[in-house]
Amino acid sequence: MSQFDNVSVLKKASVYFDGKVISHTILFAGGEKKTLGVMLPGEYRFGTEQRENMAIQSGQVEVRMPDAAAWVAYKAGESFDVPANSSFNIRVLEVTDYCCAYFAD
Amino acid sequence: MSQFDNVSVLKKASVYFDGKVISHTILFAGGEKKTLGVMLPGEYRFGTEQRENMAIQSGQVEVRMPDAAAWVAYKAGESFDVPANSSFNIRVLEVTDYCCAYFAD
Repeated sequence: MSQFDNVSVLKKASVYFDGKVISHTILFAGGEKKTLGVMLPGEYRFGTEQRENMAIQSGQVEVRMPDAAAWVAYKAGESFDVPANSSFNIRVLEVTDYCCAYFAD
Repeated sequence: MSQFDNVSVLKKASVYFDGKVISHTILFAGGEKKTLGVMLPGEYRFGTEQRENMAIQSGQVEVRMPDAAAWVAYKAGESFDVPANSSFNIRVLEVTDYCCAYFAD
């Protein structure tokens, strides 16, 4: 599926790290929320409130969870989960397009 | 209005100038198209196919049309029109959030 239908989109973008990471927020009829975003090359740390699933649409990243020693690589078509009230470090190796789903468990 | 409702959103972003300008495409029920995007500081030149209206949601830019000598400043709440099959130069003075509307006249 190349698009989301029957959704609402917040007009203002969310801008992080001086614009190196930006996203637009998508609201679904059932109350779910996702963001569509782009990350420029660099290393970032994000905190989470809700559980998240980060799906890589294009590009390449490496991710390290707080309790892990190793960095794990993800590319287009792959995704990773982050628990609620946690964080993750991410190395963006090339311009990366992602979709983040949020879960109010 | 802070959001667009009952729309479709293309999942993949449009990425220009190595990610310094990115946008997401919004499709409306009536067939209209808009993009929501973010531009990082820099100077860019964009070509147009359809007539466009660029609304600045936050940030600051200066724009020069092809047949104009002067640069014109625009800030949040202001917008400018670009004819179809034309182009414009834009200096982005700070991270700028915009909404571009396209008109198939």
